[in-house]
Amino acid sequence: MEKFDLHILGCGSALPTMRHYPTSQVLDVRDKLFMIDCGEGAQLQLRKSRLKFSRLNHIFISHLHGDHCFGLPGVVSTFNLLGRTADLHVYSPAGLEKLFAPMLAFFNRQMSYKLVFHEFSAKEPSLLYEDRSVQVSTIPLKHRMPCCGFLFEEKPGLSHIRRDMVDFYQVPVYELNRIKNGADYVTPEGRVVSNSVLTTPAAPPRRYAYCSDTVPLPSVLEQVRGADLLFHEATFSQEHAARARETFHTTAAQAADIALRAGVKRLLIGHFSARYDDEAQLLAEASAVFPETVLAKEMLRLHV
Amino acid sequence: MEKFDLHILGCGSALPTMRHYPTSQVLDVRDKLFMIDCGEGAQLQLRKSRLKFSRLNHIFISHLHGDHCFGLPGVVSTFNLLGRTADLHVYSPAGLEKLFAPMLAFFNRQMSYKLVFHEFSAKEPSLLYEDRSVQVSTIPLKHRMPCCGFLFEEKPGLSHIRRDMVDFYQVPVYELNRIKNGADYVTPEGRVVSNSVLTTPAAPPRRYAYCSDTVPLPSVLEQVRGADLLFHEATFSQEHAARARETFHTTAAQAADIALRAGVKRLLIGHFSARYDDEAQLLAEASAVFPETVLAKEMLRLHV
Repeated sequence: MEKFDLHILGCGSALPTMRHYPTSQVLDVRDKLFMIDCGEGAQLQLRKSRLKFSRLNHIFISHLHGDHCFGLPGVVSTFNLLGRTADLHVYSPAGLEKLFAPMLAFFNRQMSYKLVFHEFSAKEPSLLYEDRSVQVSTIPLKHRMPCCGFLFEEKPGLSHIRRDMVDFYQVPVYELNRIKNGADYVTPEGRVVSNSVLTTPAAPPRRYAYCSDTVPLPSVLEQVRGADLLFHEATFSQEHAARARETFHTTAAQAADIALRAGVKRLLIGHFSARYDDEAQLLAEASAVFPETVLAKEMLRLHV
Repeated sequence: MEKFDLHILGCGSALPTMRHYPTSQVLDVRDKLFMIDCGEGAQLQLRKSRLKFSRLNHIFISHLHGDHCFGLPGVVSTFNLLGRTADLHVYSPAGLEKLFAPMLAFFNRQMSYKLVFHEFSAKEPSLLYEDRSVQVSTIPLKHRMPCCGFLFEEKPGLSHIRRDMVDFYQVPVYELNRIKNGADYVTPEGRVVSNSVLTTPAAPPRRYAYCSDTVPLPSVLEQVRGADLLFHEATFSQEHAARARETFHTTAAQAADIALRAGVKRLLIGHFSARYDDEAQLLAEASAVFPETVLAKEMLRLHV
């Protein structure tokens, strides 16, 4: 199966703790790296993860709170020091470029590459990026400021050629691409060999949904329905449900309820408040509602 | 002996490595904390050090390279989230406020405390700060942009009262402060008891000098002469001496030569290039010139 791996670089919230970095993740789709949020220390964690800096061309920022973007100057400057040449694309709600561009220009007098800012509206879902293997859309969330999650959807793959059948029917090599794309094969004698005989179906396309920071929001259900993996913030335990409401965050049980109602395969919770010495209580509360729950942790790697 | 402890939060240089954070240190002078440079991750390391955030009121930035100041937005924002009320003073060469203030204002819509920027000229040594126990001056350095080190000088302490002699001469309590400050005691009978009989001298004032980033610079010798501890950058080994010259940095042996010529008691080297897997070679080269050399390391604490 081709790579579709999530790497957690940080899963804490705004206040630093002994155990967590602020939010940052990397999704590795067939060796293309997509960074999701970029809290302070993201470049340090990226180095520790041993992921290749040069494969990272796209950074998605959910919203303009410091714990989701203060790592950006470090990433941009380090890429410049390393002599990067490929464009780096940064997607965010409106305002990021105005805030960061003057500072980045000062600290990087000569840029070896082009930094391209893309601002999105946080009101409606929109397609931000697509290539042959994946597309990335926004998931509008509700927080104290414009905020979006991101949905990563693998594109349907090509069918797999059955080597035995292709040999049996002596299919010429130049026909293989058409067959992978679904065509039947017609022999020189005019006999039609059905595509289903010559191929096995591609693996079903995978989907990863990232939702942080937000109140629990029924409107995300349709977009994330059936996702292979849902990351949902779970800043607070049930005990601090009132605090969650006040600060436009979600409790672990509420995150699990979203996972359950959306029928996702697995739930990953994170963005933990600094008040918890460990997240056992959060895991217990979420798992009671949705058993397939995993706690995020720095350097955790999940195969989607 | 009263506290005069140096805590290393980060001792790498610009590129992130698996082992080092960018530059940041904290000097703890009698429970007042002075931060020296504030590279990315400084607040995370500060948390790990278990030093009290509320005791940190002064941050000294040597120069405006990212690896010395990208941690500032995180520190400022976290202090705000914690509801800090005391002023926070940030000292730097000209330009820092203009670069950071708009961003800090955006990310901290309501500040619970006052952030006060102080800009200094990097041309002449100048006194930046003083209180009853310590004074901080700039040490002009030579780098690719205006840059200063910092000299922390403890003020001479009061003499220590000799309890036995004070009892013997039945010195009244209200005389003790004068005696600590050097006065003799005159008995009711008019006999003069010399101060030297009643006291033991205060410990000699301690001095910590911080020099990063710079070419090896003879002009620092006078300022740092005899310091109890000199931190000097030692970005490169002898093998990369040419690279050190090009980038306005210092080799380990050059740092040790400065220490030797300045007659300091101990040398601490840091700001290590990312190219070294460990710093054994740097330590060997420095120690050959100046045996009392110590390698900086994250979470190292040195009693000055």
